[in-house]
Amino acid sequence: MRKYIYLIMRIQIINGPNINLLGKREPDIYGSMSFTDYLEGLRSSYPDIKFDYFQSNIEGELIDVIQRVGYEYDGIILNAGAYTHTSIALQDVIRAITAPVIEVHISNIHKREEFRHKSMISCACVGVICGFGLDSYRLAVEALFHVAG
Amino acid sequence: MRKYIYLIMRIQIINGPNINLLGKREPDIYGSMSFTDYLEGLRSSYPDIKFDYFQSNIEGELIDVIQRVGYEYDGIILNAGAYTHTSIALQDVIRAITAPVIEVHISNIHKREEFRHKSMISCACVGVICGFGLDSYRLAVEALFHVAG
Amino acid sequence: MRKYIYLIMRIQIINGPNINLLGKREPDIYGSMSFTDYLEGLRSSYPDIKFDYFQSNIEGELIDVIQRVGYEYDGIILNAGAYTHTSIALQDVIRAITAPVIEVHISNIHKREEFRHKSMISCACVGVICGFGLDSYRLAVEALFHVAG
Amino acid sequence: MRKYIYLIMRIQIINGPNINLLGKREPDIYGSMSFTDYLEGLRSSYPDIKFDYFQSNIEGELIDVIQRVGYEYDGIILNAGAYTHTSIALQDVIRAITAPVIEVHISNIHKREEFRHKSMISCACVGVICGFGLDSYRLAVEALFHVAG
Amino acid sequence: MRKYIYLIMRIQIINGPNINLLGKREPDIYGSMSFTDYLEGLRSSYPDIKFDYFQSNIEGELIDVIQRVGYEYDGIILNAGAYTHTSIALQDVIRAITAPVIEVHISNIHKREEFRHKSMISCACVGVICGFGLDSYRLAVEALFHVAG
Amino acid sequence: MRKYIYLIMRIQIINGPNINLLGKREPDIYGSMSFTDYLEGLRSSYPDIKFDYFQSNIEGELIDVIQRVGYEYDGIILNAGAYTHTSIALQDVIRAITAPVIEVHISNIHKREEFRHKSMISCACVGVICGFGLDSYRLAVEALFHVAG
Amino acid sequence: MRKYIYLIMRIQIINGPNINLLGKREPDIYGSMSFTDYLEGLRSSYPDIKFDYFQSNIEGELIDVIQRVGYEYDGIILNAGAYTHTSIALQDVIRAITAPVIEVHISNIHKREEFRHKSMISCACVGVICGFGLDSYRLAVEALFHVAG
Amino acid sequence: MRKYIYLIMRIQIINGPNINLLGKREPDIYGSMSFTDYLEGLRSSYPDIKFDYFQSNIEGELIDVIQRVGYEYDGIILNAGAYTHTSIALQDVIRAITAPVIEVHISNIHKREEFRHKSMISCACVGVICGFGLDSYRLAVEALFHVAG
Amino acid sequence: MRKYIYLIMRIQIINGPNINLLGKREPDIYGSMSFTDYLEGLRSSYPDIKFDYFQSNIEGELIDVIQRVGYEYDGIILNAGAYTHTSIALQDVIRAITAPVIEVHISNIHKREEFRHKSMISCACVGVICGFGLDSYRLAVEALFHVAG
Amino acid sequence: MRKYIYLIMRIQIINGPNINLLGKREPDIYGSMSFTDYLEGLRSSYPDIKFDYFQSNIEGELIDVIQRVGYEYDGIILNAGAYTHTSIALQDVIRAITAPVIEVHISNIHKREEFRHKSMISCACVGVICGFGLDSYRLAVEALFHVAG
Amino acid sequence: MRKYIYLIMRIQIINGPNINLLGKREPDIYGSMSFTDYLEGLRSSYPDIKFDYFQSNIEGELIDVIQRVGYEYDGIILNAGAYTHTSIALQDVIRAITAPVIEVHISNIHKREEFRHKSMISCACVGVICGFGLDSYRLAVEALFHVAG
Amino acid sequence: MRKYIYLIMRIQIINGPNINLLGKREPDIYGSMSFTDYLEGLRSSYPDIKFDYFQSNIEGELIDVIQRVGYEYDGIILNAGAYTHTSIALQDVIRAITAPVIEVHISNIHKREEFRHKSMISCACVGVICGFGLDSYRLAVEALFHVAG
Repeated sequence: MRKYIYLIMRIQIINGPNINLLGKREPDIYGSMSFTDYLEGLRSSYPDIKFDYFQSNIEGELIDVIQRVGYEYDGIILNAGAYTHTSIALQDVIRAITAPVIEVHISNIHKREEFRHKSMISCACVGVICGFGLDSYRLAVEALFHVAG
Repeated sequence: MRKYIYLIMRIQIINGPNINLLGKREPDIYGSMSFTDYLEGLRSSYPDIKFDYFQSNIEGELIDVIQRVGYEYDGIILNAGAYTHTSIALQDVIRAITAPVIEVHISNIHKREEFRHKSMISCACVGVICGFGLDSYRLAVEALFHVAG
Repeated sequence: MRKYIYLIMRIQIINGPNINLLGKREPDIYGSMSFTDYLEGLRSSYPDIKFDYFQSNIEGELIDVIQRVGYEYDGIILNAGAYTHTSIALQDVIRAITAPVIEVHISNIHKREEFRHKSMISCACVGVICGFGLDSYRLAVEALFHVAG
Repeated sequence: MRKYIYLIMRIQIINGPNINLLGKREPDIYGSMSFTDYLEGLRSSYPDIKFDYFQSNIEGELIDVIQRVGYEYDGIILNAGAYTHTSIALQDVIRAITAPVIEVHISNIHKREEFRHKSMISCACVGVICGFGLDSYRLAVEALFHVAG
Repeated sequence: MRKYIYLIMRIQIINGPNINLLGKREPDIYGSMSFTDYLEGLRSSYPDIKFDYFQSNIEGELIDVIQRVGYEYDGIILNAGAYTHTSIALQDVIRAITAPVIEVHISNIHKREEFRHKSMISCACVGVICGFGLDSYRLAVEALFHVAG
Repeated sequence: MRKYIYLIMRIQIINGPNINLLGKREPDIYGSMSFTDYLEGLRSSYPDIKFDYFQSNIEGELIDVIQRVGYEYDGIILNAGAYTHTSIALQDVIRAITAPVIEVHISNIHKREEFRHKSMISCACVGVICGFGLDSYRLAVEALFHVAG
Repeated sequence: MRKYIYLIMRIQIINGPNINLLGKREPDIYGSMSFTDYLEGLRSSYPDIKFDYFQSNIEGELIDVIQRVGYEYDGIILNAGAYTHTSIALQDVIRAITAPVIEVHISNIHKREEFRHKSMISCACVGVICGFGLDSYRLAVEALFHVAG
Repeated sequence: MRKYIYLIMRIQIINGPNINLLGKREPDIYGSMSFTDYLEGLRSSYPDIKFDYFQSNIEGELIDVIQRVGYEYDGIILNAGAYTHTSIALQDVIRAITAPVIEVHISNIHKREEFRHKSMISCACVGVICGFGLDSYRLAVEALFHVAG
Repeated sequence: MRKYIYLIMRIQIINGPNINLLGKREPDIYGSMSFTDYLEGLRSSYPDIKFDYFQSNIEGELIDVIQRVGYEYDGIILNAGAYTHTSIALQDVIRAITAPVIEVHISNIHKREEFRHKSMISCACVGVICGFGLDSYRLAVEALFHVAG
Repeated sequence: MRKYIYLIMRIQIINGPNINLLGKREPDIYGSMSFTDYLEGLRSSYPDIKFDYFQSNIEGELIDVIQRVGYEYDGIILNAGAYTHTSIALQDVIRAITAPVIEVHISNIHKREEFRHKSMISCACVGVICGFGLDSYRLAVEALFHVAG
Repeated sequence: MRKYIYLIMRIQIINGPNINLLGKREPDIYGSMSFTDYLEGLRSSYPDIKFDYFQSNIEGELIDVIQRVGYEYDGIILNAGAYTHTSIALQDVIRAITAPVIEVHISNIHKREEFRHKSMISCACVGVICGFGLDSYRLAVEALFHVAG
Repeated sequence: MRKYIYLIMRIQIINGPNINLLGKREPDIYGSMSFTDYLEGLRSSYPDIKFDYFQSNIEGELIDVIQRVGYEYDGIILNAGAYTHTSIALQDVIRAITAPVIEVHISNIHKREEFRHKSMISCACVGVICGFGLDSYRLAVEALFHVAG
């Protein structure tokens, strides 16, 4: 991992399909705060980290971004949403890059339907954090300190 | 469901991958009329309904449209094509919105290969209409009168 | 399909096991109207169609009726109830006759238990309509106009 | 459960296919007493209970009887025989009625072939008693005292 | 097996669901001769055998007949049709009786859909003859000479 | 089974993991009475039976007890809790001993998650009683009269 | 099928692995007569048929023979023994030739282990005869009269 | 969750089978630090938290401890080791208690053998943290602040 | 296939997700040459062929291109990358067009993880070439001479 | 492996659940000699080997012993009984230690129920010896000479 | 790979069961040219290569040849026919030798029955070429230039 | 077992496909000694035993030899190589003969690919010895003393 002189850590947060509906979609599962609001709080808690944020409903655009930042940034926090369970292409790009990727989920996917229990990307990520609501993202930042430290 | 003073019903028709080839592709399965021609007929049969039409080969663009109209329109008629059988992301967005979604298929998917028998989205839709050729769309409109009435 | 001079369409509606309990059984799934009441409405909506109705809890009696009308009538609307998921014998008789058969379900079977997702008869029917409550039967009539027209 | 002034309990015993052969068929598995003989003994042991008995080899006739008594009687003791393992229609009717149903088996089905281990109706019954020979029926009566009490 | 003084052999032929449509249904698979015509020929070929014939679309009625003749006749030739693949109850009754049962099929079930390859009753029958058109029944008669001889 | 002169029947009741939480744990599934309270009632209902009681969360300790009493007692009532579904070792010890073992469950395991439907021990027990709440234990005592009688 | 002037029918009987042990191996399953003895009887029963006989434990040698006679003979009676359940190569050669092939088995394979229930060659043969001991071969000859007639 | 006046948080850390070998066993997977050393560091990082620690190779002893603290403590951090993948009993006790349980793993179980990908306890825990080495435990503490806060 | 007067063959090469990383990603599997460099060499080896090249990480864009060229070009060489194993939509478009499609893979997918062994598109392509590194593309060109010749 | 000056080999024999019943339990499968008697003979046959013996019905206690001796002894002979088929924890501890472990079984587990065919520990052991009655243990000693020699 | 002074390349072509029927067997799948005719053409196209040819219907003879040439020749082109899908022994010998092996198929096996989709030998070969008719062999020669070059 | 006056024991050692490559093939798995060298040592260690040795790559030839010696010799040591996992024909012949057969493997098949974990012949052999390199054969000789003693 590359470190810069003034030690600004660069973390890319990537959210997959339908996570832009957060706060609007099934609030009993995902809570009622929008991700943008949450991100603001996260940025003020970690002023020394530069957070980039990207969301798309298109699998290939998630791959594009991971390719772009995956050889430069200090870490990627990836909530691939529904593509978690089907995307071999995401698994491939995570293996291809050098930045550590942490898989996060807002809900505990193991409490939901059977087909959400299997992740196609876990085996390529450093680790997995799931079930802590939006706090999963903060824990991933905490984890990156250690992984990328 | 929102109703307007002059009671114009708004229905979004969404077609998934390769349905733009209709009339050109395997006519023994799908018939030889293009969807645009068919849509014209449908519009003239139901002058009081405003039909919006969208087709894309990109899964995420189908999701984008469903997100955009899903809290506003009176109903969505969705032929997700091949994504029917694999897309958890489409299932998620259908659950997330408030407009009723009706799954349609031109061919009877149960007469075809085993992997086309399972739909990942049926469980999130109001109902399913399949096997009636292009007439499946008209039946979905008829169904929406009842569902959204 | 045979057409008669005065063009009275003959449609046989067949309901399988436990559908005679409609209005009494699990009303949150199936609604509270009895099928007989519904049928009366259907008949008055389509005065030019002769609807015959048959219900039985016995798989073989459903087959008997399909054999009897299957070479004469203009169409069959079949809700095979629980036999939908297990009966190869029903699949066989549907293939054996010449009248078009439309499979209907009151509830959306894909929202229910796994073993109700698979239909043994869909592959032999013209098409499937499911999830629209009793309105599924009206949509099947609409579909038959097109199929048998 | 309805209770009558003089508190006569009404229990319907229903036996499925081939149980009429009891005493004749594979006596090493099922014993050599006929069910009618056994029933006589049961009636004299419980003089305050009115036992109705029905046996049929026809799945749909079992359903017919369950529908007829299922809203009136205090309990049903059901040995569905081979239909235990395949009948979704029986599961449906048990769910549809209000009388408690107890599933019984003479032999211990878990000691027999794999395909007899799975019951399609257990999930709809109050409980299951299996493996005690004809005494399974007496235990079911005992159980009904508690369930329907 | 009981033998009578004048040695008239009694054979019960039982046909399951939809075999009454023979000659009418899918003639490319099943041929165009009706079973009644065929039976007449069989009877004249074997004048010393008394053939009883029964056909039903109702699984339980097939069981009823097998119970009735199964302790008396010299053999049963059973074409259980679609119930071949699902009926544990038929397997049970074949095991319960003493007359030898021969399973026959007109078509070669192994050339057809996957779900027709598995027979639930073969393991209880003496043997299986399948794929020889209506001649399968004659071969079964030939086989019974040996089995019951 | 050994019988003693004064005919005191000795029954060992064994409860597996987490059943000591009864009355405390998920009362909607298991009820709110503790097992000790229930046992007191049982003992007073059957004054001529000596009930021994053992509970452990440790699979091997359940085996130890079954080994110790399995050649001496008149019967064992075993609720193996979660080990029901996974323990081959319990199956083995039940086969190894001579006392009859009755499998009981408080809840109807067939109404719960798929993985609770399969029991590894049923095939080694005399029979199974499940779904009658704590009354399942009383029914097992009733069953033992007959089995061990 | 080629017919010769004097109408001698030529039938090739082929036995697969271990069938040469007949009469020696597990006589309770296969009987105690050797195949050579049986064949002698068969030849004298059908004097107008020329029977060729071949046995090998080597899968490829069975294929060699089928290739050699498969375009010349009037029929092949094949008991492929254990290769029945695994050999795609046998299936291929049966499809490749023009002579009709009848699959026979001495024992009823459906009464034996699960892995013997599936035949890889049935779908390529005209039909199957199994379970009649050595008489299965005679029945196959009888069948060939009809098939090749 | 109970809160005390001086707000000392009580957390129980529970390690399952073979985790006592940490630092000794397969150090390329699990690292070379012993858990006791690690725990000391954790305690000094969080002086306001009272950490209890328990390790056992015996499944039932893990259950015993969870039962004992599960109604009192503010949280449980559970690394169930190999029992993660097989123990329904652990799932049950986690559901039965009121303290939040966080599942942790040192290694990323999804990078290892197939049978380690499935956790039987995830669905009962609040959330899962896996793959961050011993740092997984610190992240679980961080998570508990939020969950139990 | 359309042929032009001066016989310039037009071949579309399409690469799916992450193949743009070639030379950068896991060089032990995919080699260290970029695809652009390779393509240059291919073009100079086959001066009479016009090669068009397209790469995208977005499944739907691959479909768009196949639709555009699929009725005009002489052949398509498709390395669908990870979408090979999941995309029914790609299978559909390959069936829908008229140009022959050859599936290629740089690595031998059968030496890799189980989920890479199954291709969803092979059954729609003319043929498959896999495991020869970048030389797989040249072999596909060679194959097209024959297929489209 | 550590070697001592006078070359006394130390071997730990570990028996899992129910093997303490040997001689008592199902003697047709396991023989009628107790393990203690057998061990005495083994010790006198190999006077230069120090045999330690441990038996427990508790999975975790087996692990405890393996951990204790696994870094010191020259070899472990392990008959894990029923835990053979389910215990990932035993697999883990065998991998974690340095002493060679040999898996033994008294009976041939492949002649018994399907669920006994799969061993969870074989892949971690040096080798497997099964089916030779108690002589399996002697063969394991013989094997250890070679493995640890 | 050994190279000779005058650089004659030695390639062994091996065809498995039934490929000797080429031109005779199912010509719609395999074409009507015999392999010998094809080979002649191949030899004249590549005069600097010494082609050895071997065909057998016996799995073990294919192995014999691969063993004999596998340490000497520059490459092997193997069409294992039906043994492709079942032979672990062929996989083993391919792994054991040093010459590169290329798997070829005349037809596209993925367009045929499900059981032909899986190859047991692909994982041991350098690569796979399938679906190009007899031209598959030429492509394999082309591939060997590169692999063995 | 037959015993001769001077008590020469006769043991047939049979090696299946590719074991003739021992010492040459994948020496990290199988070691570098040839089987012939090993056999010489074995013969000198057991001068009172007459060892016959046979190796073939042809499944049917292994069967031929087993048939020839299987009623005469004192024991057979069989390493069926890759046929271990697929050959029902070998299972059959082992069941058919009277000499005890011991299955051996040089490597521990449970440490290798999934498809090598299942043996089709174990259930017919006396016992299995695997994983001890060539010493597995010596252990089998030791086992035969006991089995055949």
